[in-house]
Amino acid sequence: MTMKVLGYATHSPTDALAPFHFERREPRPRDVVIEILYCGVCHSDLHIARNDWRNTIYPAVPGHEIIGRVVSVGPEVARFKAGDTVGVGCMVDSCQQCAACGQGLEQYCEASSILTYNSVDPHDQMPTYGGYSQKIVVTDQFVLKISDSLDLAGAAPLLCAGITTWSPLRHWKVGKGSKVAVVGLGGLGHMALKLAKALEAEVTLFTRSPGKEQDARRLGADRIVLSTDAEQMKAVKNRFELIIDTVPYAHDLNPYLPTLALNGTLVLVGYLGDLEDMLNTLPLILGRKSVAGSVIGGIAETQEMLDFCGQHGIASDIELINMQEINAAYERMLKSDVKYRFVIDMASLRG
Amino acid sequence: MTMKVLGYATHSPTDALAPFHFERREPRPRDVVIEILYCGVCHSDLHIARNDWRNTIYPAVPGHEIIGRVVSVGPEVARFKAGDTVGVGCMVDSCQQCAACGQGLEQYCEASSILTYNSVDPHDQMPTYGGYSQKIVVTDQFVLKISDSLDLAGAAPLLCAGITTWSPLRHWKVGKGSKVAVVGLGGLGHMALKLAKALEAEVTLFTRSPGKEQDARRLGADRIVLSTDAEQMKAVKNRFELIIDTVPYAHDLNPYLPTLALNGTLVLVGYLGDLEDMLNTLPLILGRKSVAGSVIGGIAETQEMLDFCGQHGIASDIELINMQEINAAYERMLKSDVKYRFVIDMASLRG
Repeated sequence: MTMKVLGYATHSPTDALAPFHFERREPRPRDVVIEILYCGVCHSDLHIARNDWRNTIYPAVPGHEIIGRVVSVGPEVARFKAGDTVGVGCMVDSCQQCAACGQGLEQYCEASSILTYNSVDPHDQMPTYGGYSQKIVVTDQFVLKISDSLDLAGAAPLLCAGITTWSPLRHWKVGKGSKVAVVGLGGLGHMALKLAKALEAEVTLFTRSPGKEQDARRLGADRIVLSTDAEQMKAVKNRFELIIDTVPYAHDLNPYLPTLALNGTLVLVGYLGDLEDMLNTLPLILGRKSVAGSVIGGIAETQEMLDFCGQHGIASDIELINMQEINAAYERMLKSDVKYRFVIDMASLRG
Repeated sequence: MTMKVLGYATHSPTDALAPFHFERREPRPRDVVIEILYCGVCHSDLHIARNDWRNTIYPAVPGHEIIGRVVSVGPEVARFKAGDTVGVGCMVDSCQQCAACGQGLEQYCEASSILTYNSVDPHDQMPTYGGYSQKIVVTDQFVLKISDSLDLAGAAPLLCAGITTWSPLRHWKVGKGSKVAVVGLGGLGHMALKLAKALEAEVTLFTRSPGKEQDARRLGADRIVLSTDAEQMKAVKNRFELIIDTVPYAHDLNPYLPTLALNGTLVLVGYLGDLEDMLNTLPLILGRKSVAGSVIGGIAETQEMLDFCGQHGIASDIELINMQEINAAYERMLKSDVKYRFVIDMASLRG
């Protein structure tokens, strides 16, 4: 039997988000029914709400940084039981057949993974609705265990901002003493600092705002480099094995490339689209440097990150809001006026 | 005692190359004196002759694809003796102290490797003069052994075109069954096809010219993809682990990125400068793909490539010219009218 759910949706690129009643599917044998406690607010939520990527299916219920409590499980689910604290991130399914899925890289599923919102579920051809809602129904393979030692509201952003920065740190083998830099100090950037520091890397923040120094140090940066200061940029020439570029808009990569070490990689995680300036190949060729990209992470890797965060007491710095405040929160997010992630308290939807 | 040498030099960006008498240094204890038999003609020769990179030291004697015969060796040289067939590539020295040199990556020497021409030798502050000349004096660590089984004129381009394509093939671990594509069929591209094929990769050529198919197949391509044909490009979506981009001018990478497989790399080896179009980050991020660069290769790696070519009978397809024909050859090279490399027969300088 399907279940009625209250959520928040938008019906067009210009509408505000507002209460929306819809139905969640009748649970399948491998499904987990989850009552949502907290949902983080990601830039992608805003992009989809406003049709920035021209692929929005309306009505749109955003939200893919979900922390909740298991209400019930299907008969074939062994890993979870009612009462468990769980998480759901950006994906709720994938083909499970292709080479990428076979390697646990569901985020690169050749048939396209099924996203938590704004996808069409191939089982029933229904659009997926995200975490700005009371409940969600998810196949058990895409449900994650959450350590009870974590602050649950602060854990929500781990499901997207956390894994998006964790995956490149692991793929490019960052560990003790690795020289890592982070570009941009927002939701992704502040998680990158925390995670890189916990991996015992030597961590640098590139920023254009001198005022961020104190906060950056608290979050894990050993060094802050003002990217607008030629002297400071010169001082870190050929230094970094990995630069995680979290900037969420078109920007120029050329100033950062000379700061990569031989064989170093700048990995883009924040901006999908055309870069602003022509890429100059000189530093790439003369230092065997790379510009790469990376999107979220696989399910096994996400569980690894959540376990690591549980062990190290790592959560996001958040500002808790009520569901009713989401439209104002979007406006503040557009001005980067949040330290460092809004998280919606879903109790506000019941109250 | 220094030795008088006849070479070909240009004295300004607009001068033709013409006979030039100069002196080679008095051999040091570790030097090898080499009589030059053949010298390949590389695009870089033309760039330096015409000051395209705005760093030319005039008079300029180009040439860094050198095959020669050892005339004499210094008292500390054990690896070579008079009569040996040897090669000299793009570098004649490096600091030997930095981390890059320590790893055999002299091409990425932190103090800058000393190039075969248009560098200043830090020992005597003299400019280096290249292989368009009768003799050259090189420290033994930068002299390479050449198998006598190779065609010596055809072996000359291995010293630059060969190693420039070999190094990325090895760095990105191309082997049996690897899916490799090559962009551009010139001096570098034709060597990339031959070497990738000999490494037992599955080799594709991207080209804009339908007429190149037969030649490409002879050189090792299993498949030819017309990059101007949308259908053909679509058919190779997500296919290649490595794309070696040998195009020597500004061009648009965006059409090639979707043809990279998950974790694939497009490596630029032919063009130093600003790319023509904005890079779109979408395929990079959604497939963890990379755009990288690579320059020539280290000395040990160059020897490895020369030995591999000796074993597999691989040399460049060349057109042998006399030294006196160099200016006309440059004009033809600018029109890509050469299959696939000019090599100068240095006997013409004596005759």
